[in-house]
Amino acid sequence: MTTTQTDPKVQQWTNLAQQLRVDSIRCTTAAGSGHPTSSMSAADLMAVLLTGYLHYDFDNPKNPNNDHLIFSKGHASPLLYSLYKAAGAISDEELMTLRKFGSRLEGHPTPALPWVDVATGSLGQGLPIGVGVALAGKYLDKLPYHIWVLLGDSEMAEGSQWEAFDHASYYKLDNLVGILDVNRLGQRGETMHGWHTEVYEARANAFGWNTIVIDGHNYEEIDRAFAQAAQPNGLPTLIIAKTIKGKGVSFLENKNGWHGKALNKEQEQQALQELDHVRSQTYPVQKPENRQPAPEPAKKPLELPKYDGKEEVATRKAYGDALQALGAANPDVIGLDGEVNNSTFAEEFAKAYPDRYFEQFIAEQQLVSAAVGMSVRHKIPFASTFAAFFTRAYDFIRMAAISRANIRLCGSHAGVSIGEDGPSQMALEDLAMMRAVFGSTVLYPCDANQTAQLVAQMADHNGIVYMRTTREKTAVIYGPGETFKVGGSKVVRQSDKDQVTVVAAGITLHEALKAYDQLKSQRITVRVIDAYSVKPIDADTLYAAAQQAGNKIVVVEDHWPEGGLGEAVLEAFTQRDGQLPQVVKLAVSSMPGSGTPAELMEEAGISAHHIVGAVQALVRGK
Amino acid sequence: MTTTQTDPKVQQWTNLAQQLRVDSIRCTTAAGSGHPTSSMSAADLMAVLLTGYLHYDFDNPKNPNNDHLIFSKGHASPLLYSLYKAAGAISDEELMTLRKFGSRLEGHPTPALPWVDVATGSLGQGLPIGVGVALAGKYLDKLPYHIWVLLGDSEMAEGSQWEAFDHASYYKLDNLVGILDVNRLGQRGETMHGWHTEVYEARANAFGWNTIVIDGHNYEEIDRAFAQAAQPNGLPTLIIAKTIKGKGVSFLENKNGWHGKALNKEQEQQALQELDHVRSQTYPVQKPENRQPAPEPAKKPLELPKYDGKEEVATRKAYGDALQALGAANPDVIGLDGEVNNSTFAEEFAKAYPDRYFEQFIAEQQLVSAAVGMSVRHKIPFASTFAAFFTRAYDFIRMAAISRANIRLCGSHAGVSIGEDGPSQMALEDLAMMRAVFGSTVLYPCDANQTAQLVAQMADHNGIVYMRTTREKTAVIYGPGETFKVGGSKVVRQSDKDQVTVVAAGITLHEALKAYDQLKSQRITVRVIDAYSVKPIDADTLYAAAQQAGNKIVVVEDHWPEGGLGEAVLEAFTQRDGQLPQVVKLAVSSMPGSGTPAELMEEAGISAHHIVGAVQALVRGK
Repeated sequence: MTTTQTDPKVQQWTNLAQQLRVDSIRCTTAAGSGHPTSSMSAADLMAVLLTGYLHYDFDNPKNPNNDHLIFSKGHASPLLYSLYKAAGAISDEELMTLRKFGSRLEGHPTPALPWVDVATGSLGQGLPIGVGVALAGKYLDKLPYHIWVLLGDSEMAEGSQWEAFDHASYYKLDNLVGILDVNRLGQRGETMHGWHTEVYEARANAFGWNTIVIDGHNYEEIDRAFAQAAQPNGLPTLIIAKTIKGKGVSFLENKNGWHGKALNKEQEQQALQELDHVRSQTYPVQKPENRQPAPEPAKKPLELPKYDGKEEVATRKAYGDALQALGAANPDVIGLDGEVNNSTFAEEFAKAYPDRYFEQFIAEQQLVSAAVGMSVRHKIPFASTFAAFFTRAYDFIRMAAISRANIRLCGSHAGVSIGEDGPSQMALEDLAMMRAVFGSTVLYPCDANQTAQLVAQMADHNGIVYMRTTREKTAVIYGPGETFKVGGSKVVRQSDKDQVTVVAAGITLHEALKAYDQLKSQRITVRVIDAYSVKPIDADTLYAAAQQAGNKIVVVEDHWPEGGLGEAVLEAFTQRDGQLPQVVKLAVSSMPGSGTPAELMEEAGISAHHIVGAVQALVRGK
Repeated sequence: MTTTQTDPKVQQWTNLAQQLRVDSIRCTTAAGSGHPTSSMSAADLMAVLLTGYLHYDFDNPKNPNNDHLIFSKGHASPLLYSLYKAAGAISDEELMTLRKFGSRLEGHPTPALPWVDVATGSLGQGLPIGVGVALAGKYLDKLPYHIWVLLGDSEMAEGSQWEAFDHASYYKLDNLVGILDVNRLGQRGETMHGWHTEVYEARANAFGWNTIVIDGHNYEEIDRAFAQAAQPNGLPTLIIAKTIKGKGVSFLENKNGWHGKALNKEQEQQALQELDHVRSQTYPVQKPENRQPAPEPAKKPLELPKYDGKEEVATRKAYGDALQALGAANPDVIGLDGEVNNSTFAEEFAKAYPDRYFEQFIAEQQLVSAAVGMSVRHKIPFASTFAAFFTRAYDFIRMAAISRANIRLCGSHAGVSIGEDGPSQMALEDLAMMRAVFGSTVLYPCDANQTAQLVAQMADHNGIVYMRTTREKTAVIYGPGETFKVGGSKVVRQSDKDQVTVVAAGITLHEALKAYDQLKSQRITVRVIDAYSVKPIDADTLYAAAQQAGNKIVVVEDHWPEGGLGEAVLEAFTQRDGQLPQVVKLAVSSMPGSGTPAELMEEAGISAHHIVGAVQALVRGK
């Protein structure tokens, strides 16, 4: 469908765009802060999108056929909220609550609003997440909805954008359209490439995208670009729109120094005069066709793998086994991995369910973003890589929590116990990183049956759920019938004469058990707690142990001393009245090199030998 | 200089390349693990580089004229170490210690070896760091050394690479040469683009680089490519070499399933037969010209800004003032910022010393990498952005610690107290993240004079030093003459009748002071400690306070409850004998939205009002 520049259409677009500009100014002036000029540059683009190309049922944001509109340049939230007003979704009164305490209209969009899929505001995230939604749309839902992502030019400097470009063309995501608002000006001056739209064009082409370069204030060009982009042709499309920041108001247009600044009342009056007047017209938005998502195979009862304990099994292997079992039971379970699925054992899922596995290659930002995108479409994504490499995506995990995304992450190869590969491959900060995520759950199993049970629970658990697995094979200490709940722990050794409690998890639990045997031969009895749920931690059991075993605790972890299991245990006691127990923390406190797992654990001070020493010292009352 | 394919040269290259392959196999077989095949694909490239183009004084790795050879594909460490042997820098005996406990030859390269600039092994980091070194070479040292970065094709999926490509051409870094080893095979199968060298060529060209596509096993093509790349021509160069993984051994060549696998003894024998025999020839490496780095202006006495306390000052502003002062005193101080220097106030430095300021745009991975590269050249880099956005670069910070880099990071806009912009812009995990970095220092000043003093100390402090600053203006509570040492704290209020200790830092210190006044009017006296040094924390002062003030502590912080100041305080007590005090933690425990700083601090439970309540409860003995 092409349009000719007939008066009524252009008039409608003009009216709407001016309304969007006026409203972007009004709500930021009322707030006393915000980004009117970054909104104004994209107003014409969004006016044409809303009235001609967006298919969205604002009364039913859960309609699976809805398009997805992601403002990656989240600071243009005034424009987004003004669009919602124009669509009749919010009132002018609510628009004027922008940035006020308690308002759904936050400084940057969040899913506090039902039409917002994901929080944005950390730049360079909308497109990688859009890739995730587009993967779900094309390959899982198999619905024709589009994903429209409004991009700023400043954020094209983020490497994550190019991960998204790479993946979108690799997976032929022709349901994905990027709309690049090249307004030339960043926060503190000109962007790297100014108005050189040919730079963006060449790059997007080189990354396998269709490109359409337009004047972002010429309605005919905009309309033609959207019409072309909306046609599936096997490739994602980037519309590169040359625009003017602050467009429409003489003293704002293309002026540096106006980023992130609201107009004062006097400036607002002058601007509204130039933009004609305040309007509150509502524009009909096309509803999507009412199709059903691709039918899924029925759910089946979950049959988890069982380990009889005759052989040692790495928890990373048990993760792979359990994920495959989960895949058999639940067609919503999706596998994602960062090109290491033969190490994380996600390859078992990949081989069994190739249609539900999406290789994310060595692009961890895209890996987590794809999971967030899958969560937008109510899938159950499990994303895995080496635990150390999730540090690459911390900003995405942080933002996923603000997005209220439901994603499951599994990090393998934790700690010095990986051995010879050396510190670059050792996660020694992942527990700290993942604990400090809002609403997160952090699990760290020590045995194959426990891993399987916890993987099953991850599927049903909301929020950001992280599991840390171990490279080395370890003994299977629990039976396949044992149950483990999130927030629980297991008292693995205890007596009524326990003198000290040893708290461990994962690989160190096995060291603690060795220490127990050695101490027992010295007539020192310790309680051993398997704190597999690092967050939430089982405060009740820890508290009881402290009360019953001399109020002395040794915590041992394959992690830096900061932010991990040791601090989680300490934290648990601050939630109780009374004084804290005496706590000795054993953690990795020097930089490891290469060596065998046993050598490195000994050097790090977290082996059985060190646990024995710490307990002896506590018992002696040192 | 071009070369013709004369026998002696080709023979030398062949001999050396075969030696490198043999040695890569031998040392990994001896280790029982490692990456021989990833080494073999690049052996011909490195043989020509070592003998013809690398200028390096192996006897004096600190020679400022040395080239820099960075193996971004750090898993090819066997090749790097074999090169060192060929250069006569290490013995065959040491080569055979690869991956053994205590060896300098770790699984992935680290600066435990004096010829290694930075640790690699987390992919996609060598090139962005190379950009940092190249910036120093071209604009600061003004020496003609080259930076050669060996890249793997798998790692081209990392977005950070494209940040580096973008910046290298923007800054016209013609001293930077990327050598892309396109061996087609990643860890678990083919890369996204296989042997399609034209894909890499188009992308690098679109990002403004020269490209030279060659057969990576054809010596003449390799030689010509290096000769061309070594000529400065205003642009960085990418040599794109089509290679064969496992090249030289029939049963390894281009075979999937051989990534990261050592040959067993039998396979080794077979391979060595095919590669002819073991050699231990030493090859002369050209030494660089003996030039002096560009002369720097003399150091001057540091004159820090002074604040008289008549006006409130944001600590971020004090950071900018102090950085500018530092710039005046020390010509080695370098400014870097992620396109927000008018928010972090790094703009003061940028305006005063434009020749020593390098804008890194919205590319936080590149931002931190540039700092690491500057550290390689012994500069004193200060890199700033919003504290929340350093999460984007956590993997780079983690690796910088393994690199023993000396970098200073300043994160502004910490916590809910930023107000209306909402959670995407609020750092609420930065203390946890930065504490859990090996050898890191974490500072969180509450006042302008304190900030200035601490910024001055950051310049002299080694390792990863992080400062958290506050968006809002706050009272100046210290005089300009007061001193603050890293690892210290300040007791801001105390008496001999203190009933509870309140520990705070940054914005919450001001809330604690308000709470002090309110409590005093209720005849409750509290000690108030300003824990501006979050790591290392001042355990002595905390311990004394607990002893003297009822063993009850309230810690209040503008951060998630996990991993921040509260846990740092708890951690301090585990380093002491005896039981811990009763600790109540006040931290941000619900997801904030937009609002005024006061509204959000009240909602988060970290305002003076909540401190008063917590102290009252402790005094009542709740």
